[in-house]
Amino acid sequence: MIVSKEFLVNFERKGSLKEVFPKVEEIIDMVKRDGDDALINLTERFDGVKLRYIEVPSEEIDDAYDRVDDELVDALEAAKENISNFHYITMVDRDIRLDFDYMVLGKKYTPVESAGIYIPGGRASYPSTALMGGLPAKIAGVKRLIACTPPDDSGGINPLTLVACDIVGFDRVYAVGGAQAIAAMAYGTETIKRVEKIAGPGNIYVTAAKLLVQRDVAIDMPAGPSEILVIADESANLEFVSLDIAAQLEHDPSSIAILLTDSREFAEKVEKRVSELIESKNLYTCILKIEEAIELSNLLAPEHLSLVFKNADNWIDKIENAGSVFIGDYSPVAAGDYASGTNHILPTSGYARMYSGLSVETFLKHITYQKIEKNGLRKIGDSILRLAEAEGLKLHKKSVEERLK
Amino acid sequence: MIVSKEFLVNFERKGSLKEVFPKVEEIIDMVKRDGDDALINLTERFDGVKLRYIEVPSEEIDDAYDRVDDELVDALEAAKENISNFHYITMVDRDIRLDFDYMVLGKKYTPVESAGIYIPGGRASYPSTALMGGLPAKIAGVKRLIACTPPDDSGGINPLTLVACDIVGFDRVYAVGGAQAIAAMAYGTETIKRVEKIAGPGNIYVTAAKLLVQRDVAIDMPAGPSEILVIADESANLEFVSLDIAAQLEHDPSSIAILLTDSREFAEKVEKRVSELIESKNLYTCILKIEEAIELSNLLAPEHLSLVFKNADNWIDKIENAGSVFIGDYSPVAAGDYASGTNHILPTSGYARMYSGLSVETFLKHITYQKIEKNGLRKIGDSILRLAEAEGLKLHKKSVEERLK
Repeated sequence: MIVSKEFLVNFERKGSLKEVFPKVEEIIDMVKRDGDDALINLTERFDGVKLRYIEVPSEEIDDAYDRVDDELVDALEAAKENISNFHYITMVDRDIRLDFDYMVLGKKYTPVESAGIYIPGGRASYPSTALMGGLPAKIAGVKRLIACTPPDDSGGINPLTLVACDIVGFDRVYAVGGAQAIAAMAYGTETIKRVEKIAGPGNIYVTAAKLLVQRDVAIDMPAGPSEILVIADESANLEFVSLDIAAQLEHDPSSIAILLTDSREFAEKVEKRVSELIESKNLYTCILKIEEAIELSNLLAPEHLSLVFKNADNWIDKIENAGSVFIGDYSPVAAGDYASGTNHILPTSGYARMYSGLSVETFLKHITYQKIEKNGLRKIGDSILRLAEAEGLKLHKKSVEERLK
Repeated sequence: MIVSKEFLVNFERKGSLKEVFPKVEEIIDMVKRDGDDALINLTERFDGVKLRYIEVPSEEIDDAYDRVDDELVDALEAAKENISNFHYITMVDRDIRLDFDYMVLGKKYTPVESAGIYIPGGRASYPSTALMGGLPAKIAGVKRLIACTPPDDSGGINPLTLVACDIVGFDRVYAVGGAQAIAAMAYGTETIKRVEKIAGPGNIYVTAAKLLVQRDVAIDMPAGPSEILVIADESANLEFVSLDIAAQLEHDPSSIAILLTDSREFAEKVEKRVSELIESKNLYTCILKIEEAIELSNLLAPEHLSLVFKNADNWIDKIENAGSVFIGDYSPVAAGDYASGTNHILPTSGYARMYSGLSVETFLKHITYQKIEKNGLRKIGDSILRLAEAEGLKLHKKSVEERLK
């Protein structure tokens, strides 16, 4: 569908969280109150599955290796290597320690002690998300790493997902999905010990739950339907662009694709080709000059941004808001989804204006510290005394005054 | 009051947000619906003040300099310099670009386009918070920086706070406080343009509002009552420790102080001295060995942690969770509050287990990017094809297959 710029600016991509909040709040309260029992009952109600266990037993994980093709295990290992490499390099020593005369100021980074990764599942399975969520946490140094993922029809977990979890080194995997999984990781149950940080993508119930538990634990970011924005000129490969768009649309009926191009002919061809590849009404195209397209893209802050036009390389500096950017004909979004090394857990729905994709930083926090000597305190004392007095904090003032005597 | 370790472990420091959520949700809805009118009405209702303006006029800011002592302006400038220095140094170039054979992977940081800082106020004024919230945002490169702070009885803003805002370089200052200020910054009104990120400390209503608007904007962190935890042995200066504790307790009746010491005698002396300095029941002391005290402190994750015992320097590596650490007799918390350079907007209530204090990173986000050549895609193609197939994403597979032909 060819639409106007205004249509795209005002397009609401978040989905209506408001409607699900009361229901999700209820689920959270049930888990807080009834613990494991709530998980069992809610899984039966929402997933239509009788759980065989909440924590996946270790024999089942050993077993999973027998049930999975060796080639697939190799594919996971290869993906693991690339993802680990990229994320290790970003795990630079960022600690700072400044030694002035009479004063030391420092900033040191420490990992969160524990983290929980939500891995979508159920009928489909997403072993790649186990890698993308888990590996950065391990690299950051998280001591206790758990995963929650919904059970399949048998009440167990897809073996490939289990292998992926094992390759990452998750300490525990739980066969629980939906809002109840987020509640369990946030508040704990008899079986699941609460964690400090929850990350990973999920549906609207999972997202609503993540938003609601934020008064008690930290989350990576909220998430909406996944999306791609392509900026293309006529030099782009029609088939590749169409396939990237169609691939994004196959995720979910609510997935969205936007094509911004300076060629109406190209737009029409892509629309036609995409409609052959997939049945979806969620491709929006808009005819714009490349420069305008970049500006609009920065406003929309897409999850995946594909740049396929002449000299696209030169435009990366102009990109201000996006989850991950794919430049040129041979950089399909699928490469980043699985194996190039960048992370595929990314902010959607315009959240890239204020959130980053998942990274080692998701699992790090910092502490500042200072050691001041008497002479150092003398240097800054005046400023403290005056400001403390102006703010009416007499004991603050006195705490410095007394030391300067 | 001398208490047990168990008492402290189970001590709830967050305040009961749950009770205020419905009221705050209502305030947010009013601001969304009625814009400026809601701000005017709510300010009259909650602050008992008739606003003279929503946006502070520039003449009023010029005027503020005449109304403020020159020495106080100098004190703000001195504090600004130290805070800027420390935060500039942490603003390292963290962009990464990896050039492999046939593949470029990168990660680049960009600031949020706009940010809003909440500066508590009303009867008291906190110009120091204008510096602590605003300077890191400016250093990070935020283009549009606004502040909201509650009006005093005259319906205007304290001149020292205005001078502080001007020194920082805020683009706009609004005379609005409370949950309505957070709602205005999150959703916009006729006068206040919405921002991408909201930061700064506040009371329970402000915190509840920050938590509720997170479905639409990012926040720095939730906040509870401010607090100090002191770990001391008998070598610590009794008067200094007592003053730091009393200074923390003067912030607010809900502020909390915890003293962990291996000396019952020292504990009793501090309790006695603090009770002379301030009337408060919120000092809890516990007799513990230093090693145990560090462990308990890591569990409690205090906002301010004061280490005043023999060889305290050597223990900084063992600190895993805290907002900011103050080492030795001459490092009062008040130094970090105003002028040493570290930030005073810090996670309270155990939130330091998962959040960091405010920093330049609060206002930065990153974008990953990749440019792959055909040969590069060939190298990782197998892994992608296998995993995409296993996840049932046929078009993802095809998007790579087609490129490898």
